Amino acid sequence: MTAPLFHKVTLIGIGLIGSSLARVIRERHIATHIAISTRSEKTLALAESLALGDEYSTDAAEMVRGADLVIVSVPVGASGAVAKAIAGDLKEGAIVTDVGSTKVSVIAQMAPEIPSHAHFIAGHPIAGTEHSGPEAGFSTLFDKRWCILTPSESQEVDQEALGKLTEFWTLCGSHIDVMTPEYHDRVLAITSHLPQLIAYNIVGTADDLEADTKSEVIKYSASGFRDFTRLAASDPIMWRDVCLHNKDAILEMLTRFSEDLSSLQKAVRRGDSDKLEALFTRTRAIRREVIEAGQDVPTPNFGRNDMPNKEGPNKDG
Amino acid sequence: MTAPLFHKVTLIGIGLIGSSLARVIRERHIATHIAISTRSEKTLALAESLALGDEYSTDAAEMVRGADLVIVSVPVGASGAVAKAIAGDLKEGAIVTDVGSTKVSVIAQMAPEIPSHAHFIAGHPIAGTEHSGPEAGFSTLFDKRWCILTPSESQEVDQEALGKLTEFWTLCGSHIDVMTPEYHDRVLAITSHLPQLIAYNIVGTADDLEADTKSEVIKYSASGFRDFTRLAASDPIMWRDVCLHNKDAILEMLTRFSEDLSSLQKAVRRGDSDKLEALFTRTRAIRREVIEAGQDVPTPNFGRNDMPNKEGPNKDG
Repeated sequence: MTAPLFHKVTLIGIGLIGSSLARVIRERHIATHIAISTRSEKTLALAESLALGDEYSTDAAEMVRGADLVIVSVPVGASGAVAKAIAGDLKEGAIVTDVGSTKVSVIAQMAPEIPSHAHFIAGHPIAGTEHSGPEAGFSTLFDKRWCILTPSESQEVDQEALGKLTEFWTLCGSHIDVMTPEYHDRVLAITSHLPQLIAYNIVGTADDLEADTKSEVIKYSASGFRDFTRLAASDPIMWRDVCLHNKDAILEMLTRFSEDLSSLQKAVRRGDSDKLEALFTRTRAIRREVIEAGQDVPTPNFGRNDMPNKEGPNKDG
Repeated sequence: MTAPLFHKVTLIGIGLIGSSLARVIRERHIATHIAISTRSEKTLALAESLALGDEYSTDAAEMVRGADLVIVSVPVGASGAVAKAIAGDLKEGAIVTDVGSTKVSVIAQMAPEIPSHAHFIAGHPIAGTEHSGPEAGFSTLFDKRWCILTPSESQEVDQEALGKLTEFWTLCGSHIDVMTPEYHDRVLAITSHLPQLIAYNIVGTADDLEADTKSEVIKYSASGFRDFTRLAASDPIMWRDVCLHNKDAILEMLTRFSEDLSSLQKAVRRGDSDKLEALFTRTRAIRREVIEAGQDVPTPNFGRNDMPNKEGPNKDG
C-alpha cells in the first residue's frame, strides 16, 4: 500500500459531495486524518453518527488548522464567508479547493481571502444525484466522472499544488480537465443549469394544474413527466445559489431555449410536419453521442429497475 | 392452464408496442394464433426472423380475416388509413382497438370506418422506452403500467367487448382506467407530450451551439443534460404525428409552460432568491408523490448501472 497523499484533509460542508469525499478518502486511504466542519449542529451530529471523519466542529477555522487540503463543499453563495472564516488559520502550503457548480463567482469570492502562503485552486466534480445530505453520499460517486479544475488566470498557479490536487481527484476515481472559469460557466449553463431550470419549470407548471388533473399527472407520469421530477428533486438552496451566481450565462441559454421553443410552438400550430420530423430526427443522434462518450447507459428507460433487460436481440442496447 | 382468451389476434404495426404485444401474447398464452401486418416489407421480414407471429403479410385486410381482436399500433396519423383498409374484412363481433398516444383524433379517424358488426374501443397503454422497432419490444413492457381505454361516448359501447379488452390488458400485466378521449388528451398533453417537446427542444438548442461547445455538452452531459437526451431519442414519426393530432391541448400546455418560464427568467434576472427557492422547494414534493405512486424508482439517478447502490443508511432511498 502506498503512503496516503495527504496527512490531514478538512471537509467544510458535509452534504452529498462532502460526505462522498469523506467516504472515498477513508476507503482508499487518500489521507490519514479527516476533519469535518459544517454550520449546522444537526448535520454535524449526523456526520459524526455516520463516522465520516476523525474530528468535528462547527468552527471551520479550528478544523482547517494543520490541514494539507481543505475542500469547501457548500452552496456557492456561502463560499466567500467560508474563505473569510478560514483564511487566518490556513497553514503554509495548504491547498484550498471547492466543488461549486459555478466558478467565476466562487473565485471572485474566495481568491481575495486566501493568504498567499496557501494555494487556492477552484474545482467542480461533475457528479451527483438528486439526493442530498450526509446520508446521501457514497464512495464511488466520482468514479469515471469528470472533475474540472479552473485555476484563475490572474494568479500564478503553483504547479506542485495543481499536481497534487489532480492526483487527489484521480484517486477519487475522476478524469481531470482544466479550463478557464468563464468557459466552465458557459458550458455548465447549457449542460447543467438550463436542464435543471427547465425541469423545475415543467414540474412547477404541472403543480399549478387543478387538483384533479394534478393527481392524474402523478399517476401517468411514466409517460415522460417522471424523468423531469428527478432533477426537480435536487437541493433547492444549492440551485438557488447557482441561479444567482451564474446569471449571465444562464440567461443567455434561457433566451436561446425560449427562441427555439417559440419556433417549435409555431410549427405545432401550423402543423408543419416536415419541421417537426427534422427536429425530432436530429436530436436522436445526440443521444447516441452521449452513450458513445460513456456518459449514460444504453439500456431502455435508464435501466430503471422496473424495466427488465430485454430477452431478444436489440440493435440499440 | 386456462384456455386462451382469444383464438386469433392480429397486430397491425410491429414496432416497440406491437412487438411487445406479440411477445406477451405468446408467452402468457393469451391467444392461439398471432397474425402480423405492417406496411414495410423490411420490418415484416424482421418480425418474421424474430418469430413474433404465426403468419405475416403487408396486406392488413388479409391478416384481419377471422381475427377476434385487432390491435392497431401505428403512428396516430396512419390510423384512418388502416381502419379503411381493414373495415371490409372484419368478422362479426371482432374487437378493434389501438394504442395511440392521442385519442380524440384516432377515434375521429377510425370510428366511422369500422362496421357496426365489429366493436371499436380506443386505448392507450402508458408504457414505452426510447427505443423503437420490432427488436426493441419485450414481454414485460406492460407489467404494472396503466392502460387507458377511451370508449367513445357518442356510440353505444358493447359491454362484453369492453370486458374482454379489459381482460386482455390485465393479462398483459396492466392496470385499466377508463376515461373520455378529451380528458385523456388533456392529461397526456401535460404528462407526456409537453415533456417530450421540451426534451426535443433543449437537445435541439444544444445541437445548435458552436461545434466546440457542443462536444463539451456531450462530455459533461452527466450534469443534467443526459436525462433529456433519452426522451429526445424517441421515434420521430410517432412524435410528429402526436404533435399534429393533439395540437390544441399541446399548445395550451406549451403556453402555460412558457408563461412560467418567463416568470422564472425574470426571477433569475432580478436575483429574486425567495422566489427561486420557493419554486425549487415545492417541486421536490412532486418527486416524492411520483415515487409513492410506484411510477418511478427511488434509487439515485434512476438506478443507472453506473450509480451503485449506497452502502450506508439513507432516508431518501
